[in-house]
Amino acid sequence: MPQPTTLSAAELWKKYKRNLTPCGSLGIRLDVSRMGFSQRFFGKWAEPMAKAFTAMDQLEQGSVANPDEQRMVGHYWLRNPELAPSDELKTDVVQTLADVKAFVEKIHDAEINPPTGGRFSDLLLIGIGGSALGPQLLADALGSKKDRMRVHFLDNTDPDGFLRTLDGLKSRLKNTLSVVISKSGGTPETRNGMLEAQAAYAAQSLDFAKHAVAVTGKGSKLDGVAESQGWLARFPMFDWIGGRTSVMSAVGLLPLALQGIDIDAFLDGAKQMDDATRVPSVEDNPAARLALMWHHATDGKGKKDMVILPYKDRLLLFSRYLQQLVMESLGKEHDLDGNTVEQGIAVYGNKGSTDQHAYVQQLRDGVNNFFATFLVVLQDVPNVSRYHPIAVEDGVTSGDYLTGFWLGTRQALYEKNRGSVSIICDKLDTKTLGALIALYERAVGLYATLVNINAYHQPGVEAGKKAAGTVLDLQKLAVAHLKANPDAKLLPEELADAIGQPDAVETIFHVMEHLAANRQGVRRIRSRYTAIG
Amino acid sequence: MPQPTTLSAAELWKKYKRNLTPCGSLGIRLDVSRMGFSQRFFGKWAEPMAKAFTAMDQLEQGSVANPDEQRMVGHYWLRNPELAPSDELKTDVVQTLADVKAFVEKIHDAEINPPTGGRFSDLLLIGIGGSALGPQLLADALGSKKDRMRVHFLDNTDPDGFLRTLDGLKSRLKNTLSVVISKSGGTPETRNGMLEAQAAYAAQSLDFAKHAVAVTGKGSKLDGVAESQGWLARFPMFDWIGGRTSVMSAVGLLPLALQGIDIDAFLDGAKQMDDATRVPSVEDNPAARLALMWHHATDGKGKKDMVILPYKDRLLLFSRYLQQLVMESLGKEHDLDGNTVEQGIAVYGNKGSTDQHAYVQQLRDGVNNFFATFLVVLQDVPNVSRYHPIAVEDGVTSGDYLTGFWLGTRQALYEKNRGSVSIICDKLDTKTLGALIALYERAVGLYATLVNINAYHQPGVEAGKKAAGTVLDLQKLAVAHLKANPDAKLLPEELADAIGQPDAVETIFHVMEHLAANRQGVRRIRSRYTAIG
Repeated sequence: MPQPTTLSAAELWKKYKRNLTPCGSLGIRLDVSRMGFSQRFFGKWAEPMAKAFTAMDQLEQGSVANPDEQRMVGHYWLRNPELAPSDELKTDVVQTLADVKAFVEKIHDAEINPPTGGRFSDLLLIGIGGSALGPQLLADALGSKKDRMRVHFLDNTDPDGFLRTLDGLKSRLKNTLSVVISKSGGTPETRNGMLEAQAAYAAQSLDFAKHAVAVTGKGSKLDGVAESQGWLARFPMFDWIGGRTSVMSAVGLLPLALQGIDIDAFLDGAKQMDDATRVPSVEDNPAARLALMWHHATDGKGKKDMVILPYKDRLLLFSRYLQQLVMESLGKEHDLDGNTVEQGIAVYGNKGSTDQHAYVQQLRDGVNNFFATFLVVLQDVPNVSRYHPIAVEDGVTSGDYLTGFWLGTRQALYEKNRGSVSIICDKLDTKTLGALIALYERAVGLYATLVNINAYHQPGVEAGKKAAGTVLDLQKLAVAHLKANPDAKLLPEELADAIGQPDAVETIFHVMEHLAANRQGVRRIRSRYTAIG
Repeated sequence: MPQPTTLSAAELWKKYKRNLTPCGSLGIRLDVSRMGFSQRFFGKWAEPMAKAFTAMDQLEQGSVANPDEQRMVGHYWLRNPELAPSDELKTDVVQTLADVKAFVEKIHDAEINPPTGGRFSDLLLIGIGGSALGPQLLADALGSKKDRMRVHFLDNTDPDGFLRTLDGLKSRLKNTLSVVISKSGGTPETRNGMLEAQAAYAAQSLDFAKHAVAVTGKGSKLDGVAESQGWLARFPMFDWIGGRTSVMSAVGLLPLALQGIDIDAFLDGAKQMDDATRVPSVEDNPAARLALMWHHATDGKGKKDMVILPYKDRLLLFSRYLQQLVMESLGKEHDLDGNTVEQGIAVYGNKGSTDQHAYVQQLRDGVNNFFATFLVVLQDVPNVSRYHPIAVEDGVTSGDYLTGFWLGTRQALYEKNRGSVSIICDKLDTKTLGALIALYERAVGLYATLVNINAYHQPGVEAGKKAAGTVLDLQKLAVAHLKANPDAKLLPEELADAIGQPDAVETIFHVMEHLAANRQGVRRIRSRYTAIG
């Protein structure tokens, strides 16, 4: 990123007005004026971006945009089924949406109730990654006291985490609807969460199946379990939707609707943003502009981190959501031609002005390895006409301070040649949130074409999963050996040798340490392991 | 960071055993074997680290370790008052601890009660940055159903955030104790939070003063308010404690004790870690080893990000806590000799295995701009003897999976030459958490000496605050002008000119947009602003 001379206030204002990019009539504006590009910048990028627009058109029309997995990429159809390349796909989207609404209505109208009486008051969502982050963002960003159901999550395979959530739900478990979400239907963390939840229901003599809903690929293992056990409902995850872009499929819509929030508004926001970001012009397309700013800041190579600073408590999780969307989409070893490129952009951030007190010190003074994105919401509270803010000083409210800190921090960064993008929203509502997600989805897609990578696969995730599987296989072998030899007291090296895995000694050591710490069939006596008698 | 050849499993095991660094008898071990250093590395660093040990000794003995602010740096005395360089300081620490305990006992024993009856059941903590992050971490990491009080936070100046928390507390506000924390006593976000809370109490005809406790510097503005209004109690923040290292002062201890958690264990963990990290040896000192790994990974210049991955739901906030501790301490423009160095290390992360499904794709395959730190806890749940885990597969528990994902992810990263540190804890309890915080505090201090910076000031934070103040001053001027000229309908340029601030037009524009969106005295008609009649 070239370090431009800092512009004067007058020049900045001129640049602001010249470059401000509205997003249709959504009440969202992209301000890139503090990113230190020259005015010729966008013209220079018109041609490469034209290619990206074409690629995006083809994707929307149903081309195989994820070549490695030979898949179409269809998250844009979820909010505009008319775009779907076939009637079958269109029907899939429309029908699922109708099914979600019908099911939720039955829950809200108490047509579907827990077998032990009362109504479903709580929602336990069991999923991880793309099957949890979206719903978590929505629940936190849009939740209020008016919510029809309280939402809880199991999003890992931590026994203590499971216990904490399930213990917290204890007396309400009989009124809790569990939604299990896994595209493949075989995600181990989610499977474990489901089994732990099942056990908790069973401990209260509750029939899990009568509390359970599955969101999963048709014909998956989870789908089979749900069908055979007679769960309340099953909703499909389509093959052509990736986890990180699944929030507008049943994955996100079902919990959101259960919470009592208008899912049509959510989809409409995204649809309108899609319309605004389909415009094939680097001047007028906010997603293209955003993608170009990323390229400009990171040299198209991830040379700088993307720091996301929403000045709104409700958007705290948005940075985590974007962390997944951006890093999993762009963090790739190979480009589409097979060259090793090690692409990506690191994303982090929490919320302003809070982060001002945590690490803006480094952002302003320290290592200059980032660009900032400010997310700003003009409307302080959802219902302005009924809100009478107190004055914290003469004529000044808490919200004025929040605005002041955004502008102040932005200026403090700018003075030190730290670039920033501001995304300014009139208000934060369901529609706006849908639109913001769509903006970033599109920007990620366009950026991926600019740097010639596949944004829609995740080959690197498999390696860790496979390695974890190897670890569990070693555990089974080692434990079986100790059980078969109850008198044996073995050093990790001896145990590794004994099961014919001398190379795996470090792994076996760590696995034994974990088992011994939990008295799970194994005991450690000094440095030796033995079966618990 | 030099890219070493990947070692064989046997070599790794040898390196593991050779380099494993225990932390006294705390049941915490530092494993740096996958950081790709040669065995001569530590010898080479013995001399520079000896200087860092000396500097740390001097700091602990009361030297002015924060030269810019001419302050001593005394967080180590909080857990070992014997170290304090004077009887007066020692007494300050000991007396405050006793006062905290005595006050908390009175709350728990219902000697101090809300004026309207009942007991204090809820705790509302009002603070930001160093005055909130520590308590937030502790409440989340150590909280359980047994907690004596439920903890809530106001940690920003977002009106909607205030409303949400205060609305959530509504019926319990009469039983809520509010703890307002600000070292300077003048932090605007905290002041605003206090005023909003006060208004919420007043709306229920409750006397805030009878629900309020202050933690602040003696003689500060907040101290004066608390004294004059007759708050329940006031606890000191010492001049020689920085916000980001204040968790073992009243800032962290008071809420933790109110929650019902053993603060002596917390302090003891830190004291024991201090003992283990005071050892002047690069071989045996875990904090020195950690600091050297940071230096090795980042070339002593922040060239790589520090990704923190705790494999424990309860440690989710630890990465945010470290983000502040590390980035605010190390992110500095100048070294101690006045040279411009732009130092720092960017820190981010959430929790494993969840993040495996969010961005390990990029970590493994993408831009190689980070090193990972795995935080691992062997004991799955606090009370192993009473815990009977379910088998999610034959002989395998959810916790085994968590261990498997840690080892698998670590291996998947290692295969791609991505280095990682693992910190392995026997269990996660109050003492361990105190120890982990102390480990990082010491590592940060030692690293700062290695790169010759002041870890204990934060000059860059002031710039943003000052700039925010300017924004609010402009707002007052502009609103006053519009009110004085009720017929005026002014473009932002005209308004800026009218108040004699032509250069501030962009700021004035944004401020007016915010006011108009909230109907706060200003209306926008097309692009012109006018006072609301």
